[in-house]
Amino acid sequence: MPGCWERIAQAAGKNRSRLCIGLDVDPDRFPEILKREKDPVLAFNRRVVDSTLDLVCCYKPNIAFYESLGGPGLEALRKTILHIAGRVPVILDCKRGDIGSTARMYAQAAFEHFGADAVTVSPYLGFDSVEPFLEYEDRGVFLLCLTSNPGSADFQLVPESQPLYERVASAARRWDEGRGRLGLVVGATHPDKIGRLREIAGELPFLLPGIGAQGGSLEAVAAAEIARADRIGVVVNASRSVIYAGSGPDFENDVRKAAIEHRNRIEFPEAKQ
Amino acid sequence: MPGCWERIAQAAGKNRSRLCIGLDVDPDRFPEILKREKDPVLAFNRRVVDSTLDLVCCYKPNIAFYESLGGPGLEALRKTILHIAGRVPVILDCKRGDIGSTARMYAQAAFEHFGADAVTVSPYLGFDSVEPFLEYEDRGVFLLCLTSNPGSADFQLVPESQPLYERVASAARRWDEGRGRLGLVVGATHPDKIGRLREIAGELPFLLPGIGAQGGSLEAVAAAEIARADRIGVVVNASRSVIYAGSGPDFENDVRKAAIEHRNRIEFPEAKQ
Repeated sequence: MPGCWERIAQAAGKNRSRLCIGLDVDPDRFPEILKREKDPVLAFNRRVVDSTLDLVCCYKPNIAFYESLGGPGLEALRKTILHIAGRVPVILDCKRGDIGSTARMYAQAAFEHFGADAVTVSPYLGFDSVEPFLEYEDRGVFLLCLTSNPGSADFQLVPESQPLYERVASAARRWDEGRGRLGLVVGATHPDKIGRLREIAGELPFLLPGIGAQGGSLEAVAAAEIARADRIGVVVNASRSVIYAGSGPDFENDVRKAAIEHRNRIEFPEAKQ
Repeated sequence: MPGCWERIAQAAGKNRSRLCIGLDVDPDRFPEILKREKDPVLAFNRRVVDSTLDLVCCYKPNIAFYESLGGPGLEALRKTILHIAGRVPVILDCKRGDIGSTARMYAQAAFEHFGADAVTVSPYLGFDSVEPFLEYEDRGVFLLCLTSNPGSADFQLVPESQPLYERVASAARRWDEGRGRLGLVVGATHPDKIGRLREIAGELPFLLPGIGAQGGSLEAVAAAEIARADRIGVVVNASRSVIYAGSGPDFENDVRKAAIEHRNRIEFPEAKQ
């Protein structure tokens, strides 16, 4: 079985797309027609996925939205991943981070219970908190590096001489030696820092959130790319701007249109073909 | 209703205990007798809680252990918290951290769905990732500061001039101004750093893991205390060394003995009475 980054690159090449759709479900924003469904969350995700499967390189559900709905929400998440499984990879955005013995439990939950292809992990607790996720050879791990929110300035950008996010990037490159399954979360809201980050990080793939609702830039995407056909330099996530594009009974047509627009805006690099 | 830190101080005063028992369930380590139960996790927790309720100031389930068991595990967690509710406070150890709009979902899950009194939160994403948890006036938030694991050296202790964990402590004190509901997670494995941290952090309560299996020190506990009767300076967590103390059909007697030993080792400070 190819590694996770290769599976994402394959889906990207086939669909000529670096777009990742974030499945951040919010039942209050669901189209009216879904309110009759027994499991509206699963029904919504199935319709979004079925209408966009040929337009993306992966999907990224954020587990917080499912956790806030309790047990049925998490069960809908598991079934959503099962619905996508084997077609394109799924990144479970869970930002977990705990001491080694506990991180092992989180890895088991993400990879075995939910069946995710990749996860997002927080670096604050250091290597032993990341290692249990790296032990799964056919899965991927995106380490939070430079996030897209205002609070990224509080710790990630200090001190100026060697900011924390650069330390995280260089540690990640070191930790991934001989593995090829660690990547970085890098917010598209920091385009001026991405060239330097690419230098530090070598060929680690970047997951870029913040292109849609958060106002991130497309230059960031170009700066993050790498010149390899078998691996992907950058996966660009859009959530709300795609999944809530429609509200009528055929909302998936609007979702599909929004996905096409996003995919085209972040053109797939010709040189890689 | 008194704030969360006051509720913990009340339970501590009443039980003359700064002990927090970590409910980190692992069905493989459960006493044989529980294997017949329909819901072994809930049965185990109920027996541990019922035999130690007068010996602790709070309980701390780590959600990772429940997540790794899937839906039934998380439902057992919810019922465990419901079983304890209103008697002593429950800290949900979940180390969450995400951009503001997503952190709101995590806060909803922890405080509304699970009904926790307090949570642990990761600082990496900065203030907007912590704020949604602080908006619940009657709940508490322990921010990860200096953790007990080997990986704490990777980012928290650098650079030497003003290490990240000190920045986190001083930000936490600032963020808590006028609120009184933010605290810090400080590993007992770093006793030499706790005096200085107490200076930086003012009266923020410290949650100290790492006393049992991780080999932390009791000096750390003394250095973390504050001189107030209505608030608590330090809550000391022990998990495996208490909850797996017994394996026979009456395992709760051994659990109770271990809890008494731990409570007595971290003597409740007389001056506070």
